[in-house]
Amino acid sequence: MTEALTRESQRTALQRLFQHGGDIKSATQLFPEAPQPWIDLSTGINPVAYPLPEMSEEIWARLPDAAALDALQAAAGIAYGAEPKSIAAAAGTQAILQTLPRLFPVGRISILGPTYGEHERVWKASGAEMETVGDLDTATAPLVVVVNPNNPDGRMLSRERIGDCARRLAREGRRLIIDEAFMDFEAESVAGEQLPATIVLRSFGKAYGLAGLRLAFAVAAPEIAADIRAALGPWPVSGPAIMIGKQALQDRCWLGVARRRLEDEGNWLDAALTNAGFLVAGRAPLFRLARRPDAGKAFERLCAQGVLTRPFAWSGDLLRFGIPTVDQRPRLREALTATR
Amino acid sequence: MTEALTRESQRTALQRLFQHGGDIKSATQLFPEAPQPWIDLSTGINPVAYPLPEMSEEIWARLPDAAALDALQAAAGIAYGAEPKSIAAAAGTQAILQTLPRLFPVGRISILGPTYGEHERVWKASGAEMETVGDLDTATAPLVVVVNPNNPDGRMLSRERIGDCARRLAREGRRLIIDEAFMDFEAESVAGEQLPATIVLRSFGKAYGLAGLRLAFAVAAPEIAADIRAALGPWPVSGPAIMIGKQALQDRCWLGVARRRLEDEGNWLDAALTNAGFLVAGRAPLFRLARRPDAGKAFERLCAQGVLTRPFAWSGDLLRFGIPTVDQRPRLREALTATR
Repeated sequence: MTEALTRESQRTALQRLFQHGGDIKSATQLFPEAPQPWIDLSTGINPVAYPLPEMSEEIWARLPDAAALDALQAAAGIAYGAEPKSIAAAAGTQAILQTLPRLFPVGRISILGPTYGEHERVWKASGAEMETVGDLDTATAPLVVVVNPNNPDGRMLSRERIGDCARRLAREGRRLIIDEAFMDFEAESVAGEQLPATIVLRSFGKAYGLAGLRLAFAVAAPEIAADIRAALGPWPVSGPAIMIGKQALQDRCWLGVARRRLEDEGNWLDAALTNAGFLVAGRAPLFRLARRPDAGKAFERLCAQGVLTRPFAWSGDLLRFGIPTVDQRPRLREALTATR
Repeated sequence: MTEALTRESQRTALQRLFQHGGDIKSATQLFPEAPQPWIDLSTGINPVAYPLPEMSEEIWARLPDAAALDALQAAAGIAYGAEPKSIAAAAGTQAILQTLPRLFPVGRISILGPTYGEHERVWKASGAEMETVGDLDTATAPLVVVVNPNNPDGRMLSRERIGDCARRLAREGRRLIIDEAFMDFEAESVAGEQLPATIVLRSFGKAYGLAGLRLAFAVAAPEIAADIRAALGPWPVSGPAIMIGKQALQDRCWLGVARRRLEDEGNWLDAALTNAGFLVAGRAPLFRLARRPDAGKAFERLCAQGVLTRPFAWSGDLLRFGIPTVDQRPRLREALTATR
């Protein structure tokens, strides 16, 4: 009985690791003997976070007022090149995703895939059918979802390509959702393009290394942004998220320094992966996708050494690695060597 | 032109003060000469907050894992007397309210009123019609909303009364929503009663003085709680909210001390209001409802002295006062005297 329960909870833990990154608890449950602390490379979150500012007690105590939310949305507008009226702030991209099937009810969606799983999940939960397409031009559904740059393979569509597609879809009465969760360090964002019938999603927590804060934005035509704000209701974002988000989005200097650091550390990771027999099959500033025929075995061996990466249910030869910090290099190099 | 714009923005500011408490920015816009800092008695938030614990960088940096959310929901279950499976955590009561019209689509609702305005607003936005009733037994709609204790008048229905009503509604295929936003210091909660077809809403931020944190819970039958959790999606609550909420909900001692302090400070407020010619028309541990024929004039005079209270669009002779702290007493006494 106990053993059956244990096997059941182990299966749950394993499923969780294949569903989302960052679940150290489940990893520890499966690999209780792994050296602590875990090196968590299972997410695409910047390992060097934006430094937390001093926060007054009021930030925690008071209900954030409308003017503070407006100021956050104005800062996001400047950072993304869009009008404040085009911005809807939310407690994470997921909070926006949960509203989309209700705001734009369609029976069928096209997703450029394989990609981040939550898009498929929320639309299927609403009863929509889904087609996965490998090329934007072959999408046939009234609503098309693109993650750009794509997670996990880093495939990047140019601003022009997305713009042409958005305008064509709009002419046909169709709609485009662009998830730019990993766009902060790149130049191909369409958030400032005012594309018709297009909703751009911008994560805050990944680039700024503050995923626990829960903050993200939708950027769209003012009437669509207003619909999203209405769906989220008043006080959609916490006081700390308003304060930290506003300050960080205004700090373009920090973002530039972070970009250069991630480039250096990404280059080191490329070399380490290649040395360990992986082919770097995809890249974005916050992650690498690595291919090896025995990736499943490598995932387990890395876990046994306290290094958590991200495996995929749809491919047995791929692992995604987040970018390690300099002080994680010795343990990671050793763990990678042990996978050979 | 400028003057017209100013008048427009002044109207917006005034509307905001009649819609929700806590909007010091709008109050300052309307009363720029008021002495600073404002004494904000316009909300029902505990003015002495639960002390913030030390938070590791990980709390901010990492996406909160499923086990941490489970632990928070387990702590809430113990605090409210319910099974963990009956709990759905959210980033504030509002986040739950926004999901209810979609989860329980009805064409008409009954609200025991007058009461907190967001219930009416979210259901009307979904297209539902609304009847306001003065007595639970006269409600005719398939879904009934009760705030208990009621905001702003403090009217309290007993556990037995709510239970009888819930069971009757369930037999008739109807549903009950109980908003227990102000129940933390009271003994009539039905959150632990496992009432059929009933959803109990528990705010965290009001009693614990941490409204900026955004945390609340729905308590319902496991299958309903699961539907609410699914509607909110993964990662519904921030890392800091999970950590602080869990610790505070386990700290029953703090809650008892806060209750006694609020009693003392509420008694002082009763006397001060009576001295200023108000009749205390309603009370709850976190606020008083005060009646005076010239309440509108009193609201403005209090604002002019930097004391923000909560007026109501539906009544010209009522103001709601939050509970002041001891150090606010001298200024508040003086401001109240000046309203005579």
